[in-house]
Amino acid sequence: MHTRTVYFVSDGTGITAETFGNAILAQFELTPRRLRAPFTDTVDKAHQVVRQINHTADLEGSKPIVFTTLVNMEVLKVLQEGCKGMLLDMFGTFVHPLEQELALKSHHRVGRFSDISRSKEYTDRIEAINFSLAHDDGQSHRDLAGADVILVGVSRSGKTPTTLYLAMQHGLKAANYPLIPEDFERHQLPPALMPYRKKIFGLTISPERLSEIRSERRPDSRYASLENCRMEVHEAESMMRRSGIRWLSTTTKSIEEIATTILQELQPERLVY
Amino acid sequence: MHTRTVYFVSDGTGITAETFGNAILAQFELTPRRLRAPFTDTVDKAHQVVRQINHTADLEGSKPIVFTTLVNMEVLKVLQEGCKGMLLDMFGTFVHPLEQELALKSHHRVGRFSDISRSKEYTDRIEAINFSLAHDDGQSHRDLAGADVILVGVSRSGKTPTTLYLAMQHGLKAANYPLIPEDFERHQLPPALMPYRKKIFGLTISPERLSEIRSERRPDSRYASLENCRMEVHEAESMMRRSGIRWLSTTTKSIEEIATTILQELQPERLVY
Repeated sequence: MHTRTVYFVSDGTGITAETFGNAILAQFELTPRRLRAPFTDTVDKAHQVVRQINHTADLEGSKPIVFTTLVNMEVLKVLQEGCKGMLLDMFGTFVHPLEQELALKSHHRVGRFSDISRSKEYTDRIEAINFSLAHDDGQSHRDLAGADVILVGVSRSGKTPTTLYLAMQHGLKAANYPLIPEDFERHQLPPALMPYRKKIFGLTISPERLSEIRSERRPDSRYASLENCRMEVHEAESMMRRSGIRWLSTTTKSIEEIATTILQELQPERLVY
Repeated sequence: MHTRTVYFVSDGTGITAETFGNAILAQFELTPRRLRAPFTDTVDKAHQVVRQINHTADLEGSKPIVFTTLVNMEVLKVLQEGCKGMLLDMFGTFVHPLEQELALKSHHRVGRFSDISRSKEYTDRIEAINFSLAHDDGQSHRDLAGADVILVGVSRSGKTPTTLYLAMQHGLKAANYPLIPEDFERHQLPPALMPYRKKIFGLTISPERLSEIRSERRPDSRYASLENCRMEVHEAESMMRRSGIRWLSTTTKSIEEIATTILQELQPERLVY
């Protein structure tokens, strides 16, 4: 059973409102019902949303929590004046003090994600996603010189989700390259990567967790056996240590934490802006 | 030249701080320099960050803008007391009023993205990413019954980035399926998809933009020619109309806007929580 209803109201996609609201809600032991009202960009739509919120308030006998990132002041006013929920308004709260400090007027432009589909930043990001897909799992050696980051590690150590996240979130061209038995025999990083050592980052993982993950895909295989996972992880870590590249263990880390650590360590040029 | 320096200070990855800060900065005509201080989770690290901020303030003769999502009160206090920047503090501002309204204490837990790497929600998300990769571009018909969303459209209409975004951001299993000349001759959606009509969403794009995008990959090809693009788009749109599936044009939309619209239309079960 939910104990509260939470609304995310935005004149754009609502992604910022959700990120903002969920971060704050994560500070409470609470399993609220979440309702979204994206593209609330007219006074009429705002009245509709207010009616819905007030209906919830009457039904549940407690104030719905309403996170808003409305930039259109007329639309916001409809909520401020008519809504029985508790309004947590990100823009109103922070934009006005910032106008003072910057001595600049904000332009109340709706939607951080609209009108960007043809911008340079946006096409760079799409290009980065395509690059990362084309360079997933060592598929292509072409254009590795153009990569911002190259991840290495044994199969299922977390390379693919991390490279896609780096591309999607940060617009980085991220390649990934598996470490395989041939590399272990050679005791060296894959030769194709040697020219790009500065961009390489290693991922490792505990053999126990690796065996669990691989077992979901191929149960009872040699590939997933704890013995084989121990060997591969040991070889991969020795190689990373020897070659002097930076690396981390993904065992208890989320994609977001792995990506942030990589960015802190590698400081890719493209992110300095 | 940048006119201001902006800091994002967090005790976790800083992703929420950046989302929060960038959404607010987008309201101003300003090209600030952005500096990140993730993992600021001790009083010592906070003092370091304060020194850096104050150094910037002295050097530039204006207050740096400091967005924080610090939940550790001791760490936050170091910034509040010593920092010469303008502090925009998301948690302090909203968490306390919410404690009152909910009659609950917040637990000041650091990092929305830590300790989640083994949660059900997190493993579902990784599984969704793997599913979407395995079902990119019609690669596999297997398990289509398990998909939350199936996107269709001509090559380069935006299917791949959108499916990956739906997986990464919302944990949805999103497949995508290209519409090709055979389908146009048959005048029907690909037969493999017919059982899943309710989950299908179509993407289209203006022939001019499609020709531009395809020309970057294969200049002067028939594939990229405006004539061919016109034909494919016309056929695809007729088919979508005839089959009664929902669809939209991606021409001037960002991935975020496309994804939000799809979610509003399809209302996938997995997102109701």
